[in-house]
Amino acid sequence: MKERVLHLLKESSPEFISGEFIRRNLGISRTAVWKHIQTLRASGYEIAALPHAGYQLLGVPDRLYPEEVHDGLGTEFIGRKVYYYEHAISTNETARELADRGCPDGTLVIAEEQSGGKGRLGRKWFSPYGKGIWFSIILYPPVNPSDAPPLTMLGAVAVARAIRKVAHVEAGIKWPNDILLDGKKICGILSEMNAEIERINYLIIGIGINANVEEFPDELEDTVTSLKKYTGRPVKRTVLLQETLMEIEQLYKLWLQNGFQPILHYWKEMCVMLNQMVKVVNGINGIKDIVEGWVEDVDEHGSLILRLSDGSLKSLVAGDVSLQRGFGEEMIFSIR
Amino acid sequence: MKERVLHLLKESSPEFISGEFIRRNLGISRTAVWKHIQTLRASGYEIAALPHAGYQLLGVPDRLYPEEVHDGLGTEFIGRKVYYYEHAISTNETARELADRGCPDGTLVIAEEQSGGKGRLGRKWFSPYGKGIWFSIILYPPVNPSDAPPLTMLGAVAVARAIRKVAHVEAGIKWPNDILLDGKKICGILSEMNAEIERINYLIIGIGINANVEEFPDELEDTVTSLKKYTGRPVKRTVLLQETLMEIEQLYKLWLQNGFQPILHYWKEMCVMLNQMVKVVNGINGIKDIVEGWVEDVDEHGSLILRLSDGSLKSLVAGDVSLQRGFGEEMIFSIR
Repeated sequence: MKERVLHLLKESSPEFISGEFIRRNLGISRTAVWKHIQTLRASGYEIAALPHAGYQLLGVPDRLYPEEVHDGLGTEFIGRKVYYYEHAISTNETARELADRGCPDGTLVIAEEQSGGKGRLGRKWFSPYGKGIWFSIILYPPVNPSDAPPLTMLGAVAVARAIRKVAHVEAGIKWPNDILLDGKKICGILSEMNAEIERINYLIIGIGINANVEEFPDELEDTVTSLKKYTGRPVKRTVLLQETLMEIEQLYKLWLQNGFQPILHYWKEMCVMLNQMVKVVNGINGIKDIVEGWVEDVDEHGSLILRLSDGSLKSLVAGDVSLQRGFGEEMIFSIR
Repeated sequence: MKERVLHLLKESSPEFISGEFIRRNLGISRTAVWKHIQTLRASGYEIAALPHAGYQLLGVPDRLYPEEVHDGLGTEFIGRKVYYYEHAISTNETARELADRGCPDGTLVIAEEQSGGKGRLGRKWFSPYGKGIWFSIILYPPVNPSDAPPLTMLGAVAVARAIRKVAHVEAGIKWPNDILLDGKKICGILSEMNAEIERINYLIIGIGINANVEEFPDELEDTVTSLKKYTGRPVKRTVLLQETLMEIEQLYKLWLQNGFQPILHYWKEMCVMLNQMVKVVNGINGIKDIVEGWVEDVDEHGSLILRLSDGSLKSLVAGDVSLQRGFGEEMIFSIR
């Protein structure tokens, strides 16, 4: 009901709307209207109240409230159910708990701040309050675990497309699933799944977009940026989130119907590392495996296909990639 | 300490052991000894007490207590940490919670009874109190999710070997991971994993062995049996569990060192469906996919390789398999 009161305020904005109109329209008491107005104010909405004139919406807080995410969201199932938190350890962790309890397909978990936000391989993800878009989506794709890797790449395509559309910048994709602007990371994606050998119980796509982050810890400054830092102006977080959710839903449906090829096609179009020299570092149990090569392709499983110096081809499932000038030469991180 | 008192009682059995000896040996008070004896009695241990003579262990309860599992267990890390429950919804579910909290590698979860024991694809697993061996093991294999399927087959090999050794019966394996005696199921295995795209966070092998189950629900009677029903005598559950844990640890180490080939070799030796006509049923979202064919092989990914009636080969990741007399003929379930 609070959501509907807000909707009426938004519809009439910048005009006043009478309490009587709200009351009749929603079939609630005058006191109830007043209580909802108070709740909205407590949530940061600026609402003027004048005797005889009624209420006027003056300002909407910069929060990813479910009512803001839903307002104008064009999806069918993704983001229809929202769990919103001011603080979370990590939205992926919360999503896991929700999935274990059987939440609906497409459930969205948002946090304004993550105290233990995670990137790939257990690395920390810097997630300051109200500055980024930190969220996770729970999906139940009817596929085998071995068919899951495309979903991470699907997420990358969706975010890159949404950023291009909303912020008008040429976001590129770095294999496997980072989004870059001018060689610096503005988004990371961490997919997790719970699966039996022959079916996925649930899959979680965790996405962190450095929307309006203004300052990063020193050790990240060289490799990470935000849309605000890059463009010089803040991005409307709700709009970017909505656009991302819509892209994810469209691409997800496309994937279920037509397989990975169309997604891979989009992915390659935006990939910034095809036909480049790269160095790929993998490490398991502290033992580093370093491979250098020319990026020939990315195959239908999402693996990176490298041409090595001896002319042979090597396929890599995962790893940390950096651009190189040539075989054995020093690393140049910036990708233009 | 209770475990050590029990150990002394077992060592001296069938002789008496004096309270004074226990007290000195363990460096505890007379009252403490008495309390441990009482606790053991409450757990079902029959312990006689005579003035001047001391204590005598007369009977050990038929329970999978951690102290029983540890007594004589030859493993290095599997089953070193045990969570024992009289009742659990499912040991896999409990294992998942423990893994989320970061329990040690090889942690074992045992329940005397499962109210919501599960088989593959969410099917129920009949798990009556004290009659079976219902357990899960948590592992952190340093491999990609796509390398996980062998672990289920490793579990099947381990259980089949342990059953052959302890119960002296020719347990066979039905693809992908059931253990059969005379065509009827005596053990099922359900592997689950939580994974990122490029690494397994944890893997759980859930195993249910119908050790001494005497009666099954009518609908299972034709397809399921127990060791007790088959041999006419009860099996020592602790001994079979210990043997299974030891086999799992040995095979797991072998797998990490030498890959899947040696495991697959053992698996094939005990498989009851190679060079047979089978029908494989798969179903996703209620749509059934039925394939009939001659089992040519099982490949290095654990996939079943079928020769179809048109001479072509088909590889199957999963499914429900039953033996057939020939192409299109009716199903005969019993496998001898």
